[in-house]
Amino acid sequence: MSLSSQRTGRFLSDHELDGFLLLGDSLCNLDIYYLSRFLAPDRFALLAASSISILVSSMEQGRAKKESDAGEVVSTSDYDVMAKLARFNRPEDAYIEVLKEFLQDRNIKRLGVPGDFPVRVYQGLEADFDISVLDSPVSEWRKVKTIEEIEAIKSSQRACEEAMRVAIEMISNTRPSGEFLIFEGEPLTSEKVKSAIDVSLLERGCEAQDTIVAGGANAADPHCSGTGPLPANSPIVIDIFPRSKGSRYFADMTRTVLRGEADPEIVEIYQAVLEAQDAGIAAVRAGTTGKEVHAKVCEVFEERGYVEREGRGFIHSTGHGVGLEIHEMPSLSEVGKTLEEGNVVTVEPGLYYPNLNGVRLEDLVVVRKGGCDNLTNLEKRFIL
Amino acid sequence: MSLSSQRTGRFLSDHELDGFLLLGDSLCNLDIYYLSRFLAPDRFALLAASSISILVSSMEQGRAKKESDAGEVVSTSDYDVMAKLARFNRPEDAYIEVLKEFLQDRNIKRLGVPGDFPVRVYQGLEADFDISVLDSPVSEWRKVKTIEEIEAIKSSQRACEEAMRVAIEMISNTRPSGEFLIFEGEPLTSEKVKSAIDVSLLERGCEAQDTIVAGGANAADPHCSGTGPLPANSPIVIDIFPRSKGSRYFADMTRTVLRGEADPEIVEIYQAVLEAQDAGIAAVRAGTTGKEVHAKVCEVFEERGYVEREGRGFIHSTGHGVGLEIHEMPSLSEVGKTLEEGNVVTVEPGLYYPNLNGVRLEDLVVVRKGGCDNLTNLEKRFIL
Repeated sequence: MSLSSQRTGRFLSDHELDGFLLLGDSLCNLDIYYLSRFLAPDRFALLAASSISILVSSMEQGRAKKESDAGEVVSTSDYDVMAKLARFNRPEDAYIEVLKEFLQDRNIKRLGVPGDFPVRVYQGLEADFDISVLDSPVSEWRKVKTIEEIEAIKSSQRACEEAMRVAIEMISNTRPSGEFLIFEGEPLTSEKVKSAIDVSLLERGCEAQDTIVAGGANAADPHCSGTGPLPANSPIVIDIFPRSKGSRYFADMTRTVLRGEADPEIVEIYQAVLEAQDAGIAAVRAGTTGKEVHAKVCEVFEERGYVEREGRGFIHSTGHGVGLEIHEMPSLSEVGKTLEEGNVVTVEPGLYYPNLNGVRLEDLVVVRKGGCDNLTNLEKRFIL
Repeated sequence: MSLSSQRTGRFLSDHELDGFLLLGDSLCNLDIYYLSRFLAPDRFALLAASSISILVSSMEQGRAKKESDAGEVVSTSDYDVMAKLARFNRPEDAYIEVLKEFLQDRNIKRLGVPGDFPVRVYQGLEADFDISVLDSPVSEWRKVKTIEEIEAIKSSQRACEEAMRVAIEMISNTRPSGEFLIFEGEPLTSEKVKSAIDVSLLERGCEAQDTIVAGGANAADPHCSGTGPLPANSPIVIDIFPRSKGSRYFADMTRTVLRGEADPEIVEIYQAVLEAQDAGIAAVRAGTTGKEVHAKVCEVFEERGYVEREGRGFIHSTGHGVGLEIHEMPSLSEVGKTLEEGNVVTVEPGLYYPNLNGVRLEDLVVVRKGGCDNLTNLEKRFIL
């Protein structure tokens, strides 16, 4: 019996359910991808009962049988979806009829659905099934990574590091001139560095949605991706979080660099972030909480006089889980729960001051008994 | 008054609502992106009332104010989310409290939500608001593209064409040898062609999730993306559907090519698909239905003796809308509704036979009064 069916069996019996139903496309709903390993841009249904059954369109059935891990692949055509579409006014009502028959065929009476289950379909099934809305157990399961998952994340992190090297190399090769950095005769822009990062990632089978290469005022906003010429003598935050197109697992890494002359104040800020990150990484271990790790990081900042105030200072949490989603559980924050062996989390303190810009450093670590393994090999060098 | 607020006003008054609430991340929930033009990987709430208000995390507030079209950007910190997280056992319950206060502050009593609204939040709000679950009007609005949207799609289609040219050029430059195509001394693989497509798309600011380069038995499965050496003397289906990273709009195009000697039967199949596509494109105009266009395509196949049977022949619909999603409304299929001026749809008939493999041709057109504009410039050449 696989781990997945053991867990499912326990969850169903704990909640007195015959099955747990998920609905969505597996590009966006990663719980569905996790349980089926079937990547599809269009919505499909997944029933976790004695085994995993998926209900896909007839066009996807062949591919689903080949590619998915599901024990059973059923098609909406098996439930006469075309006839039902002709009978019902709204396509969604036809789909609900198909779902009902699919569930009844599998003897499902007591049904669990996750909190993000679509309300219309819920209402359509309510009369015929005894439905409980429950926290999805899958997001819990996803927190503890298997060896294969850690390998997949590591491989994304290697691609991430290579792209980071390309970016830092580009910035190193500029000449500070006035307020800008000159590269091959022109001011180096965020866009140019991001494009080099994208090409490097693609060569390693990865893609990145929102790479951050932010200097100047941009760097003081932790989510601003950055545009235009990069500044001389001022920190540039580079945050790369690629996903492998093959494995679908993310990695995440941030470095902050400065080309030119550094103001002593920003050097002190960098040192504080580095020390806070070290303290955070040292605190990560199975059994501690994300809240405690976050507190250790905050402590370093407070000791050094960097207090969060009015959107300045350390204005975000210490870290988040990384896996099939770039932000997943567990979190290293004020509400962070107990860490378990096999969690993969970022440790990414930062300090942000609109006048001095921002500094952030981020590594990716695996939680272990008594400590953590850092999946990040790349050095941290501030002044280039 | 903008078109968006006019439409919203009409929808709310038609349904006697004070507001319509959407919840999700705008990478996956394109209705939210459409109304806010704020791209965020983490969930946020959007209320369409007299204007558009969005409720984001404090970390996203600065960026949202800069980047989004929303009339108002509010942060969960404005509703003390941290205090609520400490008070409630489940983060979702704290979030529901924040949402309640956000809605009450805006005098919302009668609330509309779309069918895909998450059931847990729906249940959390049910006691305090009079909620109606309604078909989202936004997906309807999104069907008719503005001039700017059509330009964005066109620009993605130009990138798509360039990538298609690169792929076809690569296949042209092979030497058929036995069952394979030899390129630079080695059998040319799907992976190699896809990689060249990806690089070409990236150079034009586009990305593609699941490019299809499928030959041999792979080509007979319309959704199989293809792996391994490409066959000589046999059709290769190339289907590219990139999204612009900037505008977020998709394009979509398919060509089928054959390098080497073609069996007369497959040439006839190609001719039938080409003729069916011509008939489909000729049938597209404002006022006709997607069902009628699909029927015209089926007619050509039937006249030529290609009848769908047991998963062989023309096993999918004629086309689908393209915009912020790769598959959106309207559809050209048995359930296709009336087409309107400004709809953007694919016309993509195909024939699939496991022994002979598959052929598909796909253009992207804008529905006009009395006809359509084809956004696809690339020629159709079968035998290379």
